[in-house]
Amino acid sequence: MISLAFEKGNGLLPAIAQDCRSGKVLMLAYINRESWEKTLETGEVHYWSRSRREIWHKGATSGHVQKIKEIYVDCDNDTVLFKVEQVGGAACHTGRESCFHQRVESNGEVTLVGERIFDPKKVYGK
Amino acid sequence: MISLAFEKGNGLLPAIAQDCRSGKVLMLAYINRESWEKTLETGEVHYWSRSRREIWHKGATSGHVQKIKEIYVDCDNDTVLFKVEQVGGAACHTGRESCFHQRVESNGEVTLVGERIFDPKKVYGK
Repeated sequence: MISLAFEKGNGLLPAIAQDCRSGKVLMLAYINRESWEKTLETGEVHYWSRSRREIWHKGATSGHVQKIKEIYVDCDNDTVLFKVEQVGGAACHTGRESCFHQRVESNGEVTLVGERIFDPKKVYGK
Repeated sequence: MISLAFEKGNGLLPAIAQDCRSGKVLMLAYINRESWEKTLETGEVHYWSRSRREIWHKGATSGHVQKIKEIYVDCDNDTVLFKVEQVGGAACHTGRESCFHQRVESNGEVTLVGERIFDPKKVYGK
């Protein structure tokens, strides 16, 4: 059984979600021990919301859950990589596939990339 | 010009390196403002080493630098995704392509995956 080094991050470690089909890096959020255990138990990603200070079952509101396909842990046990099926095709609250949709150009300017897969107003009602 | 939210991580933000060709997630490490600026300036990834408490020009010892191909910032400006050419083909100090080479099986056991691309003894002389 693997033991994650939660103490290295004061109880929180970064977790990366990558789409198992497209290979896109979808998002990064944080896990604590409880959310890690819930993820293993349920097969759906649970993070720890640092702003709301609660377990965050990703997709609980939108239906866009992340179904675990594979889990990897890095060489020093302090970061997790979830390979997931992203239900609904979009991980970002903006409706885009990936949260990493701000491309930094060589002059430092930002280009928004990626179409909106869903309309956040319809999904979150705001 | 993008402004990263370094204050959210007490000066340090996570940065993910992804191989621009294979799409593999190679590693996660941390950046501070100085390493971010050096990365933009030089076109090679510079992290902040939390253990050594210094700027870490990835590959400076091994020659296995990470050449920036694209840079993405996430929707709340607190995580960076570097798409890189990984010189030498391996990002991990163990000689494997990716630091994420511990696959967690459904019973919680770990399988090591990925061949060693280089021999760490030869590269680091230890």
